[in-house]
Amino acid sequence: MEHTEIGVVRTGITRADAATVETLAQFGVATIHEAMGRVGLLRPYIRPVYPTARVAGTAVTVLLQPGDNWMLHVAAEQVREGDVVVAACTTESEDGFFGELLATSFRARGARGLVIDGGVRDVADLEQMDFPVFSRAINAKGTVKATLGSVNVPVVCANALVRPGDVVVGDIDGVVVVPRERAVAVAEAAAAREANEEAKRERFRAGELGLDVYGMRGPLAELGLRYEDER
Amino acid sequence: MEHTEIGVVRTGITRADAATVETLAQFGVATIHEAMGRVGLLRPYIRPVYPTARVAGTAVTVLLQPGDNWMLHVAAEQVREGDVVVAACTTESEDGFFGELLATSFRARGARGLVIDGGVRDVADLEQMDFPVFSRAINAKGTVKATLGSVNVPVVCANALVRPGDVVVGDIDGVVVVPRERAVAVAEAAAAREANEEAKRERFRAGELGLDVYGMRGPLAELGLRYEDER
Amino acid sequence: MEHTEIGVVRTGITRADAATVETLAQFGVATIHEAMGRVGLLRPYIRPVYPTARVAGTAVTVLLQPGDNWMLHVAAEQVREGDVVVAACTTESEDGFFGELLATSFRARGARGLVIDGGVRDVADLEQMDFPVFSRAINAKGTVKATLGSVNVPVVCANALVRPGDVVVGDIDGVVVVPRERAVAVAEAAAAREANEEAKRERFRAGELGLDVYGMRGPLAELGLRYEDER
Amino acid sequence: MEHTEIGVVRTGITRADAATVETLAQFGVATIHEAMGRVGLLRPYIRPVYPTARVAGTAVTVLLQPGDNWMLHVAAEQVREGDVVVAACTTESEDGFFGELLATSFRARGARGLVIDGGVRDVADLEQMDFPVFSRAINAKGTVKATLGSVNVPVVCANALVRPGDVVVGDIDGVVVVPRERAVAVAEAAAAREANEEAKRERFRAGELGLDVYGMRGPLAELGLRYEDER
Amino acid sequence: MEHTEIGVVRTGITRADAATVETLAQFGVATIHEAMGRVGLLRPYIRPVYPTARVAGTAVTVLLQPGDNWMLHVAAEQVREGDVVVAACTTESEDGFFGELLATSFRARGARGLVIDGGVRDVADLEQMDFPVFSRAINAKGTVKATLGSVNVPVVCANALVRPGDVVVGDIDGVVVVPRERAVAVAEAAAAREANEEAKRERFRAGELGLDVYGMRGPLAELGLRYEDER
Amino acid sequence: MEHTEIGVVRTGITRADAATVETLAQFGVATIHEAMGRVGLLRPYIRPVYPTARVAGTAVTVLLQPGDNWMLHVAAEQVREGDVVVAACTTESEDGFFGELLATSFRARGARGLVIDGGVRDVADLEQMDFPVFSRAINAKGTVKATLGSVNVPVVCANALVRPGDVVVGDIDGVVVVPRERAVAVAEAAAAREANEEAKRERFRAGELGLDVYGMRGPLAELGLRYEDER
Repeated sequence: MEHTEIGVVRTGITRADAATVETLAQFGVATIHEAMGRVGLLRPYIRPVYPTARVAGTAVTVLLQPGDNWMLHVAAEQVREGDVVVAACTTESEDGFFGELLATSFRARGARGLVIDGGVRDVADLEQMDFPVFSRAINAKGTVKATLGSVNVPVVCANALVRPGDVVVGDIDGVVVVPRERAVAVAEAAAAREANEEAKRERFRAGELGLDVYGMRGPLAELGLRYEDER
Repeated sequence: MEHTEIGVVRTGITRADAATVETLAQFGVATIHEAMGRVGLLRPYIRPVYPTARVAGTAVTVLLQPGDNWMLHVAAEQVREGDVVVAACTTESEDGFFGELLATSFRARGARGLVIDGGVRDVADLEQMDFPVFSRAINAKGTVKATLGSVNVPVVCANALVRPGDVVVGDIDGVVVVPRERAVAVAEAAAAREANEEAKRERFRAGELGLDVYGMRGPLAELGLRYEDER
Repeated sequence: MEHTEIGVVRTGITRADAATVETLAQFGVATIHEAMGRVGLLRPYIRPVYPTARVAGTAVTVLLQPGDNWMLHVAAEQVREGDVVVAACTTESEDGFFGELLATSFRARGARGLVIDGGVRDVADLEQMDFPVFSRAINAKGTVKATLGSVNVPVVCANALVRPGDVVVGDIDGVVVVPRERAVAVAEAAAAREANEEAKRERFRAGELGLDVYGMRGPLAELGLRYEDER
Repeated sequence: MEHTEIGVVRTGITRADAATVETLAQFGVATIHEAMGRVGLLRPYIRPVYPTARVAGTAVTVLLQPGDNWMLHVAAEQVREGDVVVAACTTESEDGFFGELLATSFRARGARGLVIDGGVRDVADLEQMDFPVFSRAINAKGTVKATLGSVNVPVVCANALVRPGDVVVGDIDGVVVVPRERAVAVAEAAAAREANEEAKRERFRAGELGLDVYGMRGPLAELGLRYEDER
Repeated sequence: MEHTEIGVVRTGITRADAATVETLAQFGVATIHEAMGRVGLLRPYIRPVYPTARVAGTAVTVLLQPGDNWMLHVAAEQVREGDVVVAACTTESEDGFFGELLATSFRARGARGLVIDGGVRDVADLEQMDFPVFSRAINAKGTVKATLGSVNVPVVCANALVRPGDVVVGDIDGVVVVPRERAVAVAEAAAAREANEEAKRERFRAGELGLDVYGMRGPLAELGLRYEDER
Repeated sequence: MEHTEIGVVRTGITRADAATVETLAQFGVATIHEAMGRVGLLRPYIRPVYPTARVAGTAVTVLLQPGDNWMLHVAAEQVREGDVVVAACTTESEDGFFGELLATSFRARGARGLVIDGGVRDVADLEQMDFPVFSRAINAKGTVKATLGSVNVPVVCANALVRPGDVVVGDIDGVVVVPRERAVAVAEAAAAREANEEAKRERFRAGELGLDVYGMRGPLAELGLRYEDER
C-alpha cells in the first residue's frame, strides 16, 4: 500500500466497478456492514447533515490540514462521474471546510456527495440541492487556503481506512467503506443477507420469538439463564 | 428491592395500572417531571431517533452487555400489550443493539417502543413503521449474541433507576420514569399543573410579565437586584 | 466596557439600528461571519432546536446561574420589538431553562427568539409557535428561581462576547454576533461578498474548477504540490 | 425501597457492618467489582483528584441541586466515624461543590472521603490533608446555598444506585458500591478470587500463556479461529 | 473596548500594577474567583500540564488560527518580565501549538507561563523547566506558520474575556482572570476572605457544623426540610 | 495490504529492525512525528496511565470486540522480545480490557508495553511494575472471553493505521507509529531535527526571537500584519 504522505495528488487511480457500486447502492449501510463481516464502518459521530441524505460511489480521498480546505479544490479536478469525496484531516477539526459553492463545483464535476471528518456549512442550501453530505459537525466557521495536504492517498477517516477507488455508502445509519477488491463479494453477501431477513421478518410479524426463530433457548439455558417468577 | 443481578429473567412482574398510563400519556415529559417533584428524568443524551417519536407504557427492563443484544430477544417474550422496553448496559456502549427486525418482533408482541442507553440502526425503517425509539446513538455497527444479561431486574438507565412495571414516558424533550406506586399521584399532579399553566399562558399572551404573574419583584429587590440606567 | 457583574439590570441600552438589522437578516450566518473577518461566531455546539429556525435582532443579554432561570423573567421586561434574548451561564449547565410559557411571554413583549448556552424544553411547542431557539441542549429538567444573575451586562456566550444592543443572527449553520458599531460596515461587506459569490457560482456550475477560478495552481506548485500518475 | 425525594433528611440509617468494611477495604476496586458479579461500578469519569487517593466506608448519600452545595453541610451532621459521603446531583453539573473547609468539617465528623458526581476545588489542600475525593471534575467555580436537596435517600451517582449504609470503595481504578446486604458475601468472594489469582500470577510469571492457563485453545478453535503463516 | 480583529499587534499596552499582581499571586484561584464575585473563571477543561504548575502575571493575549502557532512567535517579542501569555483560538483546536523551544524563548523574554485554549507538547521538558502551562490538551501534533492572527487584542479564552494587561492566575483548581481596573479591589477582597476563612476552619476542625457556623438551620426549616427517622 | 478480517491470527510477521527501534526509542514522540512529515500520530485521547510511562517497540496488533479481551490472550503467544501490543476495538469501548495479570504474562513473553483504544485497570500495579500502558480510559469494569477478533492484522487504532511489525513509540506527549519500511529514514530525520533544534535552543535561551531565528518578519509583513501603538 502506498503510504499516507503530504503534498501529493495521485491521478489515474483505479475505481471499483460502476455496476457493483449500483448494486451496493441498493442496500442499507447496516446490511453492507454485516455483509463485510462487521468491519469498515466509520465512527458514528459522522452524521448526515439532513435526514434523507443517502450516497453511494467510489472514493476520491482528501487529506486536509485543520482549518484549511485548499485540498478540496484540488480534489474537485480529480472527481469523475460517480465519485464520493472522502475527506480526512491530520487532526481533529470541526471548522466549516465545505459549503454550497464547493458543492456546486463538485456536482458539476460528477461528484455524488461528501463524507468529511470535519465541519460543513450552508446546510440549508445543501439540503435544497439534495447534495448528500456526512460530517462530524455543522459550523459556519470558514477555512483558509494556505497549507498542503494530499489527494488520493489512503486516509484514515473517522477511524476507518479509506483508499482511493474504494466504495463508500452512507445513509441515516452511518457510513461504510468497502475495499474495491471486495466489492463484488460484499454485494453478493448483502443480497443473500437481505433475502434471508425477509423470511425472518415474516415470522417476527406473525409473533414468533427470536428465541425460537434463532434457536436460542438451548444455548441460553446452557449458559445458566434462569427464570424466576415474581408472583 | 431485588438486586440487579446478571443471568436472570423475572416473570410475572407487577405493572402500573393501564388506565393511569393512558392518563400520563397525555402529558408532556416536562410536565410529568415537574409533577414528580423533579426527579426521574433520564440524562438528556437520550434522544428520539426521529423528531415525532412519542411513547408511554410500562417498563420491561433489560440489562445488556456491551456489543451484545441477546437479552433483547429474551425480553421480547416478556413483553405484553402496552409495555415499553427499557434497556440499560453494564457499561457505556454505542453499538447498534436494535433495528427493524427486532422492532417488528417487539411490535408483534405488543411493545409500544424502546428506550435504550446504547445505539440503534435501521432508523429510516423505524420512522416509517413509527416505532418510537429513544437512544444515545444511531450506529450501523451490529452486535453479537454471546453473553448473559438480565430481564426485568431493576436497572439504572442513563442515570435513572427503572424497575419493571414502572411507567415510562418519552417525547422530544426527553424520557421520564414514574415509579408505579406513584403513578396515580403523579398523574393527578400533572393535571393540576397543566390547568394552572393555562391560566398563566393567557396572562403572558396578554403581555403581563412573569415578574408580576409570579410576584417576583419583592424577592428580587430583597436579594439586592438593582437597576442602572445606561442613558 | 462595563464589567460583567452579578445582580444588576442595565436599562436604556443602545441598540443597533433597526434598518441595518433587517439588512443583515437577509444574509446567512456563514456570509456574515466571513464579512466580519471571521470573528464573532458562537461555538458550533449551539444548534437550532428545529431545523428551520432563523433569527435576527438586537441582543438583550442575560447572565444565568446554573439550574436557575429567574433572570429570564427579569429580562422579559427589558425586551423591545426586534430583540433577541442571548443568555449565558456562569458555568456549564444543560438544564431546561426555557419553555413554551416563557416563549409566550417573550413573544408578547416583541422578542424574535432566544440564543442560550444551556438547555430548553417544550421543543414541540416552540416549533409549532415558530419561536426560534438556539441552544446547547434539549432537556425536560426544570430550573429554580433562587439566585441573582444579571441583565444587559456584557456576557460571554458559547465563547463569544455579546454586549447588549449588538446584532445577533442565527440559522442552521450557527449563530454570529455583530458589534453594533460594526453593523453597517458588516452589512455592506456581506452584500459585496454575496454579489461576488453569484459570479463564482455560475462558473462552478459550468464546470470550471476552483483551481482556475481562484488562480490556485501557481501557489500550489510553488509550495511543492506534485502530481503522480498511479497507472 | 424508599423513593428518591427532595427536601428530606433520613436519620438513623442502617450501615453495613464495620468489620466487613475493613475486609473489603483490603481489596482493589477491580477485584470487588468482579466479586460482585460485575455490577455496582460507577461510570469511569469519576476519578480520584490525586493519584494515591483510596477510600472505603459506609455511604451517607446526598442529592444536590446544580451549583448548590447546601446539602453537603446538612450531610455533615449525619456523618459518623467510617462513613464516605456519596453525592449525586439532579442534573449534570461540574461546579466546585466541595473544598478544603468542608473537608475539614467532614474529617472532624469522622468521614473517610467523598465521592461526588460533580466538581471540587482546593485540590492541592485536599492532597496535603490526604482527604480522598473522587469527582467528575476539578473546578474553582463556587456554589450557592439556596435550594433543597436530600440526605440519606437512595441516589443514582454516576449511573450506579447507592443507598445509605451501602459500602463504597474507591481507588485509582474507580469506585464500586456494595449493597450492605451483600457485603459479607462479596468480601468472601473477593478473598477467594484473590487467592486464585496468586496461583495464576505465578504461572504467568513463568511464561505460561493464558491460552493454556485458562484452557482457551479448544473453544477458540471451535469458534473457527485460524492461524495463517505470513512467511 | 477595542474590537477583536485579525492581523494586528498592539504594542504599548497598559499592564496591571506589578505589586498588585504579587499580592494576588499569594491566593489560590478559588479564593480570587470568590473575591471577584464569581465571575472571570476559564472553563474547567483548561488544566495544568503538570500538577504543581502555578502562575500569576499580566496577560499578553494571542489570537491563534487552528493548527497554526505563528502568532506565538510574534507574541514573544511583546512579552515583558512578569507577563503570562494567554492564547485563544478562532475555533476549537487541540493541536500542539507550543513546546520546549518556545518555552525557552518565552522564559528568556521574561514570561512566567502560558494559558492556551489548545494543545501543547514536550510536556516532560516543560515540567523539568518548571515552566507552568495550562492547556486544553496534550498533543504531539505540530502546527504550521501560515496564517495571521493577532497579539494584544481582547480575546475570549475558554469562555472568559481576557484583555491585554489583565491579571491571570492559575493553579491546580483552574485559571482566573482579573480585569486590571479591578485588581486592587480584588486583592483586598481576597485577603479579607482568607482571614475570615481561617476562623471558620478552626471551628470546623473542632467539630462544629456548617449548619451552626453559618446559621443555616432556620432557613432550611423555613424552606421545608424535614428529618425522618429510619429506625 | 492484507485486509482487516475477523477470526484470524497471522504468525511469522516481519518486524522492523531492532537496532532501528533502539535509535527511534531515544527520541520524543513529537520529534518522531515531525520527522515523519507529520503523519502517524494516534488521536490525543490516548494517554499514558502514569506520567513517566515511555515505550518503544515493534507492533503486535490486536483487534478486539467491545467488552471482550479474549484476543489479548491469543496475542500473548505471538509476542517476542521487543514487541509492543497495539489493541484496537471494532467499536468505541472503554471497558477495562487489561490489568496486572495480563501485564505479568505480557512481560514474561517479552512485551515492552501496551497501546489500547480502550480501558485498562490495576493501574497502581502497572505503575509499580513500570509496565507502560497508553489507553483511552482507566476503568475497573472487566471484560468477557466470548467472541473472536484477530491478531496481527492491520488495525486502525485511535485513527491511525498500525500494521504488525511497525514501530510504535509512546511518551507523555502521545503515541506515534512508524511504518517499518520508513523506520530507518525516520530515525535519520529525527536525529537531524534534534541536532538542528539544539542550535536554535541556544539562540532562544540568549533572548533571540523566533521572528529573527526563523526569518519571519518579511512574510508577516507581506501578509499585512500591522503594529499599532496603544499609547
